[in-house]
This record gives sequence, C-alpha cells and structure tokens, in this order.
Amino acid sequence: MANVVINKLVIIGVGLIGGSFALALRKAGRVSHITGVGRSRENMERARDLGAIDEIASDLSSALKDADVVFLAIPVGQTGQTMTQIAPHLRPGTIVTDAGSTKQNVISAARVHLAEHLHNFVPGHPVAGAELSGASAASPELFRDKNLVLTPIDETSETALKRVTELWQACGAQVSQMSARRHDKILAAVSHLPHVLAFTLMSYICCGNGTGDPMHDEEIIPSELLRFAGSGFRDFTRIAGSSPEMWRDICLGNREELCKQIDVYQRELTALREMLVNDDGKALEKTFAESREWRKQWLEGTP
Amino acid sequence: MANVVINKLVIIGVGLIGGSFALALRKAGRVSHITGVGRSRENMERARDLGAIDEIASDLSSALKDADVVFLAIPVGQTGQTMTQIAPHLRPGTIVTDAGSTKQNVISAARVHLAEHLHNFVPGHPVAGAELSGASAASPELFRDKNLVLTPIDETSETALKRVTELWQACGAQVSQMSARRHDKILAAVSHLPHVLAFTLMSYICCGNGTGDPMHDEEIIPSELLRFAGSGFRDFTRIAGSSPEMWRDICLGNREELCKQIDVYQRELTALREMLVNDDGKALEKTFAESREWRKQWLEGTP
Repeated sequence: MANVVINKLVIIGVGLIGGSFALALRKAGRVSHITGVGRSRENMERARDLGAIDEIASDLSSALKDADVVFLAIPVGQTGQTMTQIAPHLRPGTIVTDAGSTKQNVISAARVHLAEHLHNFVPGHPVAGAELSGASAASPELFRDKNLVLTPIDETSETALKRVTELWQACGAQVSQMSARRHDKILAAVSHLPHVLAFTLMSYICCGNGTGDPMHDEEIIPSELLRFAGSGFRDFTRIAGSSPEMWRDICLGNREELCKQIDVYQRELTALREMLVNDDGKALEKTFAESREWRKQWLEGTP
Repeated sequence: MANVVINKLVIIGVGLIGGSFALALRKAGRVSHITGVGRSRENMERARDLGAIDEIASDLSSALKDADVVFLAIPVGQTGQTMTQIAPHLRPGTIVTDAGSTKQNVISAARVHLAEHLHNFVPGHPVAGAELSGASAASPELFRDKNLVLTPIDETSETALKRVTELWQACGAQVSQMSARRHDKILAAVSHLPHVLAFTLMSYICCGNGTGDPMHDEEIIPSELLRFAGSGFRDFTRIAGSSPEMWRDICLGNREELCKQIDVYQRELTALREMLVNDDGKALEKTFAESREWRKQWLEGTP
C-alpha cells in the first residue's frame, strides 16, 4: 500500500491533541505542510517553535482555500461556532475530521453548519486522555497503540473515511468504526460517568453545607477529612483534576445518555446499600470479588 | 526521653501490617523478642525467615503468658473470635492494641470479649493502604510519615496509651487521637465510600443483566466497554482490586455510617444530574472547578 502524503493539513486548535496529530504525521512523513489556527498567539508560536506547524494562519480564508484535510481539535462546546466559521471557505474536496469526545452532538452540529460538506466529514475521537494541555505537552507518540474511534455517518464517502483511517494509522492508533450512538454509550460508561463520580466525591467531601451532611454533628471540616485520605483516594479522584470547562462540555454534549447511566449506576449503588442494611456479607463479597476479577482480566488483556 | 524497649511482643496475624510493625520496631531497636501467631504455616515461616519474628507460637497460652504487648493485625471480621481466644491467657499488665480499619465495632467486640482488660486496650488504625498482602510484602518503612489513629476509650489507661503511641512513633508514624465515632466517619468518607463507588462501577460495567441496562439495546458487552477504558478508568478503579473479604468486613463493620454517607453522596449525584437535565453549564463548571481546586490544594499540602 503506497503511503499517501497530504499536501496541506490545517489544524484548528493546536493543543495537546492537535499538536500531537501534527507531530505524529510529520514523523511518519505523511504531510508536506501544516497550518495552525488558534486563539492564543503564545501557544501558536510555541507550536511553530516545536515544529508541530509550519505556519500560523493569518486568516481562515487563505488557510483553508487549498487545504486537503482540516482537523478540528477544539473543545466540543466550540464545535458549532467553529464549523460556521470554516464552512464558507471549504473547497468541496477538503476532508474535515474532528477529535471531539462526544459524537452525536458533533454530528448534529455538522448537519446544521456543514450541511453542504457531509460527504467529506469524518467524525472521530482519539481515546487518549492526558491531564496536560497545550502545544508544549504534544508528543508524536501520544496516539501510539491507543484507540481511535471513527463514527462515519450515512453521507460520509468511502474515500474520505479511508483517508482519515490511514492518517490515524500512521500515527500508530488502533482505528475502529462504530455508530456515534454506540460510541457515546461506551464512553459514557467508561469515561464520562467515572469523571462525574470522581468530581461528585470531591464535591461531597469538600463542599458539604451542613444540610444532611453526616460530618456536621462532629464538626469535621474538609481539610481534616483530606488529611486522612491516602493513595487510594488520590488515584480515585485523579480524573477530578481534569479541566472543568472541557468536562462541562463533554457532560452536556452527552447529557441524555449520561443521565440514563447515572440512573442505572444509582440503582446499583442502592442495591449494594441494601446488602449492607441486610448484613448480607455473602452478597457483598460476591459483588466485590466479581468486580475485582473483571478488573484483573481487563488489566491482563490490556497491552 | 528514654527509648522504652519491650521485652516480648506477640503479633497475631503476621501479614503486611503485622510484619511491617515487627520490622519497624526491630529496626528502631524497641523490642527484644517477637512471637508470631498465625494460621498459615508457610506465611509464618516466611515471616521468621525475613527476620520479622523470632519464634512461631506453638500455642496461645505459652505465647501470651509473658507478653508485654499483643498486636492484633487480623481482618476486622475475625476480631471478636480472636479476642475470645486470647482473653483467658492475658496477664492484667499486658497491653493489647489492634490495627482494624473500623473502630467502633472493634471496641464493641472488646467490651464483650476483653471486658476484664479494657484498661490495657488501645484501639488503633494505621492508615497505610497497600494492595499487597502477606509477610513477604512487609517493610520497616510502611508506616513512615503515615497517619496512625488511636481511638482510646474511657477505660484505657494513660500508661497504655502512652506506650502504644511511642511504639508507633518509633515506626515513623504520625500519631493522632480521636473518638472511634469520628474515626469511622472520616474513614467512611475518604476510604470506605470511594471503595464502594469503585466496586459498584466495575459491577455496573460488567455485571449488568439487561434489566434497565442502558447497554442492552445496543448489545454492548463488558469486554467491548473495557476495550475503550483508559488510564483514568484504571486509576479510578484501582481500589476495586482490593481484597473482597477484607472490604466485606470493613463495609459491614462500619455499615451504619457508610449507609448514611451513601445516601448523602446519592443526593449530591442527583443534584449534579439535575444540572445536566437543566443544561446548566454554569453550575456544572462551578462544581467541577471547585472539586479540582480542593484536590489541588490537598495534593499541594500533602507531604
């Protein structure tokens, strides 16, 4: 298979994801010229100094007019607005793809704002989290052996899908395809819900106002609670150190599915509480043992 | 202050905690002779080979007859039974202390089974988690700079309390005192509740039976969900890899407090769900930002 090289890639949002995509494709020799678009002049200059981009776009019109591929690596909450801005400048042949963490809402936005361009629109999501952000955190190896999910729509052309698949494979990613609905369900379970649970635990520990707060009668303050928190607590809440803006957007972007899953999780938690109330050590131990066993199998199967 | 050396220490349960206590006190030169009591012959021989204990007890009577201090480092679920076994052999002057993760239930057991010995009973809890177990995982540094909580009761003598405090300080631990009730509330919040939440997430992901399961209609199976789980999920669920027996005992040992806190946590989660339903991005971002800020402050303040 001949390695396809694209002449011009435009990256909108040259942060961790956009910058890493640039560095990985450059390292793989798959792109001749990369133009970056972004709001922070400082970050764009950093991206240029690091060799992620060749050029900082002066305006969208000239950046996009001869682009082969446009990569949207922006917070999902800015998707609609950004699509509106790029739409007038896109050539019909330019492929547009994105890195949004939620897919049904990105597709809805594309149906409104990129309506004339859906044949060349390939929704995608690199499942590669990192706590860092900005171009300076970018790495050509960020996507190596990581999952990359494409969620093409009926209108997406085979050619565009194939091209984007090849680019991500060149970055070392494991590319798979599924419906946007399926993607959003899976990510709600393994990513969005755990984030909500971790944020809520910190909120429970630290922001209790005394109403129904079990710490109230002993006057236990958050700093005293946290003094006795150990490494288990630190790891459990690590994802509560993530960007509030980004997670606001993701949670709202997938809120219908997330609410459904919160409901089912709450029912599971209530079932476990019942085991406690009934002093049912056998059921409790079974639940814990199964959970541990699933986790063990998962870790052993994970490269 | 003269370093008090104890002549004979008896450790009941020479696993990670019991073995580390032995090694730390030996390293500090605070004990002349250590006798180990345990069910697994193999583990006891390991403990002896590692130098944690000098002698494997042949029977409780001879082990305890000249003991200065007895350390119970057993699963909390076995506390009552073990106390019943040692009670007939204790001299009045022997200090008994323990390492149970829950304190109100250990104290209740002592009031029943060590009723004649409460003046020399010092309930304690080294807050030093580790995923490993057994004597071979023991380390003289396990308690270094870790929290050690003593929860003396009204009957506990000042002399016994002082002696146990000094032993733990010799292990490098940060010793503090509080009521058992306060201890159990704090640990429920920062340890027991997070464990329950992590076990429940694994259970939610892996053991859904289709009833009310949001994955059901898309026929998404656990292994496919877990394929897309990343490092955030791995860290969040790390504590779900803990011992099912141990956590069954801890949860049941503190079930009243834990149930109360599950209720309040559920209310917090429901409040967050309401923000999603109302599309209230501002409230959501505020909650996430406060959670992140508290966590950041905690990490910066943690040695």
